[in-house]
Amino acid sequence: MGITTGDTDDRTTADALRELLDGRWGTLRRNSVELLSGLLESDAGKPRELGREEYRAWVLEQLHALAEAGHPLIGFPAEYGGRDDVGGSVVAFEVLGFGDLSLMVKAGVQWGLFGGAVQALGTAGHHDRYLRAIMSLELPGCFAMTETGHGSDVQNLRTTATYDPSTEEFVVHTPDVSARKDYIGNAARDGRMAVVFAQLVTNGEGQGVHALLVPVRDDAGAPMPGVRIEDCGPKAGLNGVDNGRLSFDRVRVPRANLLNRYGDVAPDGTYSSPIEGEGRRFFTMLGTLVRGRISVAGGAGSAAKKALALAVRYGDSRRQFTRPDTGAEVVVLDYLAHQRRLLPALATSYALHFAQEEMVSALHDVADDRQQRELESRAAGLKAVATWHATRTIQTCREACGGAGYLSDNLIAGLKADTDVFTTFEGDNTVLLQLVAKGLLTSYRDHVGDLDPWGMARFVADQAVGVVIERTAARAIIDRLVSGSSDALLDRGWQVRQFEDREKHVLEGLARRLRRASKENAFDVFNAAQDHVLHAARAHVDRVVLEAFVAAVDRCGDPSTSALLDEVCDLYALSTIEADRAWFLEHGRLTPQRAKAVSQAVNELCGRLRPHARALVDAFGIPESLLTAPMNA
Amino acid sequence: MGITTGDTDDRTTADALRELLDGRWGTLRRNSVELLSGLLESDAGKPRELGREEYRAWVLEQLHALAEAGHPLIGFPAEYGGRDDVGGSVVAFEVLGFGDLSLMVKAGVQWGLFGGAVQALGTAGHHDRYLRAIMSLELPGCFAMTETGHGSDVQNLRTTATYDPSTEEFVVHTPDVSARKDYIGNAARDGRMAVVFAQLVTNGEGQGVHALLVPVRDDAGAPMPGVRIEDCGPKAGLNGVDNGRLSFDRVRVPRANLLNRYGDVAPDGTYSSPIEGEGRRFFTMLGTLVRGRISVAGGAGSAAKKALALAVRYGDSRRQFTRPDTGAEVVVLDYLAHQRRLLPALATSYALHFAQEEMVSALHDVADDRQQRELESRAAGLKAVATWHATRTIQTCREACGGAGYLSDNLIAGLKADTDVFTTFEGDNTVLLQLVAKGLLTSYRDHVGDLDPWGMARFVADQAVGVVIERTAARAIIDRLVSGSSDALLDRGWQVRQFEDREKHVLEGLARRLRRASKENAFDVFNAAQDHVLHAARAHVDRVVLEAFVAAVDRCGDPSTSALLDEVCDLYALSTIEADRAWFLEHGRLTPQRAKAVSQAVNELCGRLRPHARALVDAFGIPESLLTAPMNA
Repeated sequence: MGITTGDTDDRTTADALRELLDGRWGTLRRNSVELLSGLLESDAGKPRELGREEYRAWVLEQLHALAEAGHPLIGFPAEYGGRDDVGGSVVAFEVLGFGDLSLMVKAGVQWGLFGGAVQALGTAGHHDRYLRAIMSLELPGCFAMTETGHGSDVQNLRTTATYDPSTEEFVVHTPDVSARKDYIGNAARDGRMAVVFAQLVTNGEGQGVHALLVPVRDDAGAPMPGVRIEDCGPKAGLNGVDNGRLSFDRVRVPRANLLNRYGDVAPDGTYSSPIEGEGRRFFTMLGTLVRGRISVAGGAGSAAKKALALAVRYGDSRRQFTRPDTGAEVVVLDYLAHQRRLLPALATSYALHFAQEEMVSALHDVADDRQQRELESRAAGLKAVATWHATRTIQTCREACGGAGYLSDNLIAGLKADTDVFTTFEGDNTVLLQLVAKGLLTSYRDHVGDLDPWGMARFVADQAVGVVIERTAARAIIDRLVSGSSDALLDRGWQVRQFEDREKHVLEGLARRLRRASKENAFDVFNAAQDHVLHAARAHVDRVVLEAFVAAVDRCGDPSTSALLDEVCDLYALSTIEADRAWFLEHGRLTPQRAKAVSQAVNELCGRLRPHARALVDAFGIPESLLTAPMNA
Repeated sequence: MGITTGDTDDRTTADALRELLDGRWGTLRRNSVELLSGLLESDAGKPRELGREEYRAWVLEQLHALAEAGHPLIGFPAEYGGRDDVGGSVVAFEVLGFGDLSLMVKAGVQWGLFGGAVQALGTAGHHDRYLRAIMSLELPGCFAMTETGHGSDVQNLRTTATYDPSTEEFVVHTPDVSARKDYIGNAARDGRMAVVFAQLVTNGEGQGVHALLVPVRDDAGAPMPGVRIEDCGPKAGLNGVDNGRLSFDRVRVPRANLLNRYGDVAPDGTYSSPIEGEGRRFFTMLGTLVRGRISVAGGAGSAAKKALALAVRYGDSRRQFTRPDTGAEVVVLDYLAHQRRLLPALATSYALHFAQEEMVSALHDVADDRQQRELESRAAGLKAVATWHATRTIQTCREACGGAGYLSDNLIAGLKADTDVFTTFEGDNTVLLQLVAKGLLTSYRDHVGDLDPWGMARFVADQAVGVVIERTAARAIIDRLVSGSSDALLDRGWQVRQFEDREKHVLEGLARRLRRASKENAFDVFNAAQDHVLHAARAHVDRVVLEAFVAAVDRCGDPSTSALLDEVCDLYALSTIEADRAWFLEHGRLTPQRAKAVSQAVNELCGRLRPHARALVDAFGIPESLLTAPMNA
């Protein structure tokens, strides 16, 4: 099936692609887009040069407008007026990524992290008392987990919550400056209450990390007694979010403030929990918060799409240097080097979009522990890959727009500054990929989460080396593609085989290395293999993403759209293989001749997709009002 | 010779390294460092959250302080009170890169670009009249070359300067919005005069691009009649620089305002020039401005060093996760993944430092046309490589510092935002690398600069394929290293051979491809090879940089310092080979086994250099006052 070109056809193509991209939550997605563009238009768009305090005030206003429009209801329980649509809540969050990213993050803090923690870690009493006020923004709140001294390793955070049976209260305390809560959104200005993660101590015994509700400001906005609030000050971006630091000087809260779904303290101080083992309990609690990572991956995806939409429009009209044969100035997107910068990134954005949608569906439908653990691993991996993709892509888009890309008016500068921290927050990417690798090595036998290298080595030693790739999406289609595949570079079955083979081989090699570890040298063995660990995780995520793309191509009904999408998928697959072709060469998977052919095929695919670049970014469905930039006027 | 460790030794090592790094302009470099830290300290450091206008005002104040302290004198002629030290002026500029980057860029605009153009393109009359006022900042000025529609392709800019013999004036005119001068530093607020590049027309004939002095504001600061000034508004960074847009509505300036060193117009309108051919003349003019690119490469180098110094300090004290054997928390720089992020980048910063110093020396000593053309090519290549290195390294440093890296107080955020445009200004990096490739293909037979693909193809066709690698630095040492080399990965001769061999092979292959071009298909042939072109340039620059590093190791007198530097050089060489090992595998230069051994050697070098990381960044000699960050307190 040939790909059609021409303006009308491109419009039709963009529409058909958009329908596919909109996916399972298509109606909700379109409604959210409309809500957002209405919201930002009614305020004449984002203020481009407010001081920090005014910007924060503007964001809070918009947040109230979102609340009034019902945005937060989507993810909360119907019995409190919500819509019980977990997947939809992530999709609506993603859509916010087309607009002001401080607003997106502030919404995520209030309803995703703060509200999500109350919902997931609390019980009926907490829900009855707080959920409505959280949704309506009557009760702005914080998610106070990270400490200055413990960010990635939150299991070892050091704030304490010591139960005092004489008053039936918890005493929340910050022992020293490294234990203060840091980078906490909503803390510096607006938050009234915080979900505080602390080491719970009762009857003289530590029970590990638990979460409690601690009021941090009174109704007048003054810090509560014993609560010290600092402002994190200006940041690289997201300056509409009021990040701050919280320290507690023996602050007392009632026993009922413990979010007690996974661990409770009786009036006399007796501890009880449905989950045995501090570690398991902690990672179960963290697991319920997986939506945060999934949301960040989605928000990063939206920002990358917006940067690509801006840069492709610019590249499609900007001219520089003349052709010697015609004397006409060349549109810069006609240069191979320019295509090479933007089009593989665009193909990857498509791939990640489909992987994201599949993950959101998995979150929505999760039914058992095994699915939950797979989801956690998937969320860790996709969050890392999607946020690095966003950082790299937005940087590339900035450069591809030259000096124009550097001006705030042209929007890319803000996207870059605001998304930069995505690679770090909701889990540092490097740490997350190690979680993914551990999950793979232990075949999800136990909770992912614990990064102790000895634990990892032990798991590996326990099992035979011999990795089985479990196909995640569209198993039947992929089986068919693989079994009938030739060795042609553009054969999807061949591409899938390369991704699978790489993952299996890298994982098996890693397992062999880690089995050498003893308790004495576990750290050194693990540390020496750390680049191998990261590569294994990366290979896994790449494969999962490709499978999601394959499934999406398969469900595309329209033949001409499907043909175009097929080439986008080829570009994703081959540019991913090209980027790691040293591995394929080192392991005899590609001959030098074929490796060069992969690069040549990427060049050719760039040329073939170039006429469709505009349609491909239009299909993201970003409202025109949010893409208005003088460079594209 | 072993490498010593321990605190005192590390101090000695840092001092010895610093002396080597300080190099030929050591005294001037140290004096400049002192001047800068005094300047910024006396103002209690950079204002961290000023509004844009206040920030601009602050930068102008600092610029005046620099003028008063004699900073600008270094590069100007002694007969006007200057110090005739061209190389020194670049070194002093580099040092500004340790401080506020808006100040550095504003200084570059005033004294490097504006003053440099008056000096290089003007004649005695202009010098007499303006140079003192430029140095003292009595006459703040702009360098108005780039237009909205023509940035990279400045030869085709469209502002006109039409000579009117009846009044002996030039009429400077902006025909339409795409011909307005854009992104012009010093234009939005402070500039009184501009060097305007325009198509010169006299007696009805176009003579190509020339530069004229055009007053843009009167003494009261109001725009001159016919001059329209707009503000470029907020930018991703460098907001202390007042970038603006200039348009001219038939603005008349006296004939004497033509900077007439390379082209003059007699009172009757007769045009004359010592250089024949519009293109050659234009590129000769541009060539005199080569110092700008060299300065940007140096400024980018300083920013990357500062980011590395901040991130290495943080990584050297930040702890996260516990070792299973000891229970102690691990310093994050002890993780291989963290070393992998920071140490190859640190080694590359060393390599680029020595290459930069060599280039500054070449600028200072340039004696003939051939050297000048080599210098221009070198400047284009190193500017591209150094600025991309800075962007990538600062990004890595930000991520390596996690959330702390995102806070403005910790300085990396500002470095990132301010340096981002370096990859674009003073020549877009992708365009610059194409200039380098052209220079290599034509063996400097003609001026580099013209990017017309047909021109390039023709040159190539004219000469036999068979590239001779001309060693640039330390020829005798490198001859010796290469001729006595083994095949050990840590043999410097082997490393140099790999760099040379890659450059030669890539270039020869490129030449063969381009020879296929005819006038009819030149664009397509060239365009299809564009990634090959960029790779050739990159391979060349890498080799030149390695040679500079080799020469520096050779002149290091102290044996223990030299041994350490040797390992840093190994890490630069092997991590560069590793990054492009797909090429070495594809071309049979590395067996799969050896390619894996290269990666393993990089890991081992990271481990061996890790104890010296702090000394290696201390040796950059960045004043403590400019590295003060809460995360490292």
